Amino acid sequence: MVLPRTGIGVDVHAFAPEDDPQPLWLGGLLWEGERGLSGHSDGDCVAHAAADALFSACGIGDLGTHFGTDRPEFAGASGVRLLGEAARIVRAAGFEIGNVAVQFVSNSPKFAPRREESQRVLSEAAGAPVSVTATTSDGLGFTGRGEGISAVATALVYPAPKAPNNAGS
Amino acid sequence: MVLPRTGIGVDVHAFAPEDDPQPLWLGGLLWEGERGLSGHSDGDCVAHAAADALFSACGIGDLGTHFGTDRPEFAGASGVRLLGEAARIVRAAGFEIGNVAVQFVSNSPKFAPRREESQRVLSEAAGAPVSVTATTSDGLGFTGRGEGISAVATALVYPAPKAPNNAGS
Amino acid sequence: MVLPRTGIGVDVHAFAPEDDPQPLWLGGLLWEGERGLSGHSDGDCVAHAAADALFSACGIGDLGTHFGTDRPEFAGASGVRLLGEAARIVRAAGFEIGNVAVQFVSNSPKFAPRREESQRVLSEAAGAPVSVTATTSDGLGFTGRGEGISAVATALVYPAPKAPNNAGS
Repeated sequence: MVLPRTGIGVDVHAFAPEDDPQPLWLGGLLWEGERGLSGHSDGDCVAHAAADALFSACGIGDLGTHFGTDRPEFAGASGVRLLGEAARIVRAAGFEIGNVAVQFVSNSPKFAPRREESQRVLSEAAGAPVSVTATTSDGLGFTGRGEGISAVATALVYPAPKAPNNAGS
Repeated sequence: MVLPRTGIGVDVHAFAPEDDPQPLWLGGLLWEGERGLSGHSDGDCVAHAAADALFSACGIGDLGTHFGTDRPEFAGASGVRLLGEAARIVRAAGFEIGNVAVQFVSNSPKFAPRREESQRVLSEAAGAPVSVTATTSDGLGFTGRGEGISAVATALVYPAPKAPNNAGS
Repeated sequence: MVLPRTGIGVDVHAFAPEDDPQPLWLGGLLWEGERGLSGHSDGDCVAHAAADALFSACGIGDLGTHFGTDRPEFAGASGVRLLGEAARIVRAAGFEIGNVAVQFVSNSPKFAPRREESQRVLSEAAGAPVSVTATTSDGLGFTGRGEGISAVATALVYPAPKAPNNAGS
């Protein structure tokens, strides 16, 4: 029997300072007119949490392990690109992806009208269903004060069936 | 093979102000003599996180999607009622529920004596096992300062087997 | 078919005050020269979150239920010992452990060089794969201010197949 493995991922990015405004990338989408997040990358904490949950489920490290300073080609890469590359790494490590679920916590942007678009973009990047939901923290903590956005994700992966003639791997 | 899907849900409610005290509903139970949470609903963040984790696992939105302003019959509904309705929506969307697990973070109430009662009430509402656990944040953050309660939940769901003569769905 | 159950665990510990320094135990390892966490136990929130996720998946309570004041033999026990005992309790309750995944949020210690060592120690304690990952909260909240460390974990468990001649249990 093929047993799934669960993983968890958390990511937090602060909003960019007002004197250095950035575009907001979140859930794989560009949000026009919304205050952006800071970060070396596009700050897309939804995509980052999803990627981290995939790595976590496989036990093969985290974003820092795979996209750290020794892989300069990913410096500044978009969250969607990182998620796509994470899915590739996970499959190369011998796992199939069941699904990924992400919820982010923030006062903005208003997510509902673009939820399905976000899910489509991230699911295409991962090659598996990615669900995205949103909530607020009722005015409490750093998300309630509008200092940043946090996201938490879970993922299920499965050991991929071995190809019959794939000896030795 | 039937593959499960994982979901995640987070919910936070602030305690009601002292000059507008509310009863505390948490984990489907009324807690006499405890400070209550604010909210349009009963503020039961344990039940809300459980419902959100179910929606998340199915990729069909979140509490706002299903109990928003276009469904006024749920304005002010109890957390138990929302969880029961969430389970109904999830099943109507073609999923069976495996289980739901929730942990809340708060200095109060003292949960252990009523944990099994809470699990019974929520499991009956969901029609599937719901586990509830409690912890504190060691005095840190908004939960440590007693400003509110946060809850995080995971859920597993399964695509329901198709009825043999249920053509076309 | 054997259906897995999912669980969730969160744990937070504050750093010990500077006038009462403690050794740092995290992820089952001693971190020389790093500021330690306060707590009755060794404060290893990674191991604690893992244990809580296991209990949560089984619906059999939490750390307080199993290691509370009525079990004084666990006062001050290490996180690794608590995780090992949690795994024993979970198996005695009739479950097999699939895997556990933990992510902690903190500015320090630098985790990457010892990640595999940590995973080995915790996996051996649990008798099942435990993955550990790390991130920061981008300077936000209590973890961003360096007041403490938080950890969140998920776990999958399975009802153990009944032994054929194990009547009545």
